[in-house]
This record gives sequence, C-alpha cells and structure tokens, in this order.
Amino acid sequence: MTNLSSMQYMLVYNTFSFTIAAMFASFIFFIAARSQVGEKYRPALLISSLVVAIACYHYFRILNSWEAAFTLTNGEYVPSGKPFNDAYRYVDWMLTVPLLLVELIAVLALPKKDREGLFGKLAIAAFLMIVLGYPGELTTEIVPRAIWGTLSSIPFVYILWVLWGKLGAALSSQPPHAQVLMKNIRLLLLFTWGFYPITYMFPMFGISAQSSVVGVQIGYAIADVLAKAFYGVMIYWIAFAKSEADGSLPARH
Amino acid sequence: MTNLSSMQYMLVYNTFSFTIAAMFASFIFFIAARSQVGEKYRPALLISSLVVAIACYHYFRILNSWEAAFTLTNGEYVPSGKPFNDAYRYVDWMLTVPLLLVELIAVLALPKKDREGLFGKLAIAAFLMIVLGYPGELTTEIVPRAIWGTLSSIPFVYILWVLWGKLGAALSSQPPHAQVLMKNIRLLLLFTWGFYPITYMFPMFGISAQSSVVGVQIGYAIADVLAKAFYGVMIYWIAFAKSEADGSLPARH
Repeated sequence: MTNLSSMQYMLVYNTFSFTIAAMFASFIFFIAARSQVGEKYRPALLISSLVVAIACYHYFRILNSWEAAFTLTNGEYVPSGKPFNDAYRYVDWMLTVPLLLVELIAVLALPKKDREGLFGKLAIAAFLMIVLGYPGELTTEIVPRAIWGTLSSIPFVYILWVLWGKLGAALSSQPPHAQVLMKNIRLLLLFTWGFYPITYMFPMFGISAQSSVVGVQIGYAIADVLAKAFYGVMIYWIAFAKSEADGSLPARH
Repeated sequence: MTNLSSMQYMLVYNTFSFTIAAMFASFIFFIAARSQVGEKYRPALLISSLVVAIACYHYFRILNSWEAAFTLTNGEYVPSGKPFNDAYRYVDWMLTVPLLLVELIAVLALPKKDREGLFGKLAIAAFLMIVLGYPGELTTEIVPRAIWGTLSSIPFVYILWVLWGKLGAALSSQPPHAQVLMKNIRLLLLFTWGFYPITYMFPMFGISAQSSVVGVQIGYAIADVLAKAFYGVMIYWIAFAKSEADGSLPARH
C-alpha cells in the first residue's frame, strides 16, 4: 500500500459507498419484484437477491477495511499499517459466482437433459478460477501476478465458452421478445466478466502504484455492480418477457 | 469549513436526523401501500421505496460525516480536519434521479411509442447535470461555482422542460381526479427541483461562510425530503386515483 491523495482515497471510498447503496437497493427490488413474474421464474429472482445481499455485506466490510487501512496525515492518506483485506472479494466470489451460474441456468429453463451435470462442471471451474486468481492478487509484482492470472483465466474462459454456447443454443426456443434480451445478456456476460481480468491486470500496465490501487478497487466495484445488480435486472426483464409470453404473468386488470 | 456555533451545528444535525426518519418511514409506507393500488401501478411504488431507501442510507452516512468533521471546543464546533463528505449527495443523486424519472414515467403509463427513448434521453441529461454540478460544489469560490452551476443547469432545464411537456400531454388521457393530481405533481416537480439550484447558489449570495454552510446543508435536506418522500406520496395518490378510475383497485369489503 502506498500514500494516496485525498482525491484518490475519496474516489475509492465513494465508489464503495455507491456499491453498497446499489446492492441493497437491488436486493429490495429483486425480493419485491418476484411477485411480478410467473411462479416458474421466481427462483431466479430470489437467487439474484441473494447475490446482491452477499455483495452488499462484503462491500460494507471492504469499505471499513479501506477506512482502517489509511490515516489522514497532513491532507494525505498514509497507510496505517493495518492491511487492506482483499480477501473479502474472493470470499464474495466463492459464494456469488456459483449463485450467478444457477441464476442463469434457472432463467434459461433448459430441458432436464441439457441441465444435467452443467452446474457441476461450471461450479468446479468457478472454484478453480477464484482460487487460482487469489495468490496473484496479493502481489503487485508482475511475474507472479501474470502466472496466477493466466492459470485463473483457463477455467474463466471455459465458463464463458460453455455459457455462450448454451445461451446460443437456447435462443431458438425462446419467445421473440426474450430472444433479444437473451442476446443482450450474452453480450453483457462477456462484457462484465471481461472487466475482471482487465482490472486484475492494472498493476501490470506500468502505471503508478497509486493509480493501480485506485484502478483495481474501482474496476472491481464497477464490475460487481454490473455483473450482479445490473445482471439481475436483465434476468428480471427476461423473466418478465417469458412470463408474458407463456401467460404466467400475475393477473392485471 | 469554518467554526460553527452550537446552534448552527445542531440545526444541521437535527435536519439530517429528521431526514433519516422521514426517509425510512416513507420506505415502510411505499412497500406496504403497494397492495392498495392496482397491479399496474405497483412498480411505481416499488421504485419510490428504492429511492427513499437509498436516500436514508446516504443521510446516515452524511450525518456521521458531519459529526466527524467537527469537534466541540469551548462551546463552539471547530473543524476537526476530517473533511465533510459532500460526495454522498452526488452519489445518491446518481442513483435516485434516474429512479425518480422511471417512477414518473411508470405512473404516467404512456403508450409504448411515447415512452421509447424517453428514459434514455432523460437519464443522460441527469448524468450530465450531476457530474457537472459536483466540481462547483467542492468550492465556495464564486466564479468556478457559478460556471459549473450554469453548465449543470442546461441539462437540468432540459429534463424539466421534457417532463413538463410530457406531463401536460398526458393530462387529457387521465381520469378527472388524476388530472388534478397530475397538475399538482407538475408544480411540485418544478418547485422541489427548483430548490436544488437555489441551494447551490447560497454561497454566492454574499452571506457569511457559516450561514452558507448551514443553508446549503438544510436546503438540500429539505429538497430531498420533498423531491423523494413527498413526491412518492403524490405518486401514490395518483396511482390510487388511477386504480379507482380503471377499476383495478383491490377489492374492499
């Protein structure tokens, strides 16, 4: 950890606070919005709500850890000696990535034979992806970070490749309006998940230590808001469109 | 930040505390009142509840930051050196202004073709309005504050102008009782939103630094209570009147 200017410190601090607010607001939304979609799609929304609730908790901890890691000295934020706990994110991902996979599989509503074994394979890949990424996160040295990052990318690419294929294969069986949304969610998946490895690589870009700390924290926070809260809203739209198409929408007068 | 008298400090403190109470009470109200209007209008009330929940969270943080920014010395409140974090408001507006726009569009229940693209345009304008206002908020110097304030006013006026027009155009298609409410909400929109730029300009009025700090904090808090909590209550009245008119009111015994 290095000294940060007041502006750099506050930028990260306010991004964390923003993330907390975004996560709990989407928690309330997902819980309440369950009654607005068909019975069949409610589990997907419930899982969305768990994902953002877990993330909200972790961002509270992350913000507190960030506050404790610095002391304000002569207008600058100086490391206090207390380490900033990066592990919160990895613990969060251990819980939320498998849930995000379940959520996506749930809303696809694939036939049983296509679902079988799918979650198991993806969950193992997710576990490897997170566990292999963590050792690299603990260092800002380029070589070990690059090695662990590359190892972690193998299961990462595998997950995206499988999901991309499944989402593509499921497209034809979806109602027309849901098809457009599914194509969008497929792109969003690629875009938001792609945000993580780019953020991971920040310290390798030859930028200053300060910019790299700030960039990594803000990058992950934005990626988490997109991949969890915004992703959940997309899942809600799909669930709504599918409920409309299969007539399971709660009665409206 | 300047020294404040005990009276000035407590006036701001108690206004923040009042705002927290108003926000969480209206959160409970909006969540519970959903079941009292037709299905079609429930999303509008749900969004009202998100807006005040997010604001409640931020006012907790704002109150804590206010407390930390001063120390009581010889009966006077002296800046402690910890900065008062103005950014909470701006982060709050980033999340709540788009939601307020969705809420208003949702309760208007415009035909699909009139809705299309409307939210996108307004959301971009809202983003510009907030981002351009912030740099001016960080200073009490008149010139930069006036420049950023003026720039921020352009998208601000645009949003109000579009909403005023849409609300006016939607009037004729509303049931009679809702028409009166819509006219009121249109005035309330102008009145409460107009409160923000006036508050923003306080430091330019040639009043003392103390009065200007106190005025800005109290002004924004009152504007937030009106534009979020009271506005949500108006939305509820409209939703109720429209449910009554279209027969979607839940059965009463």
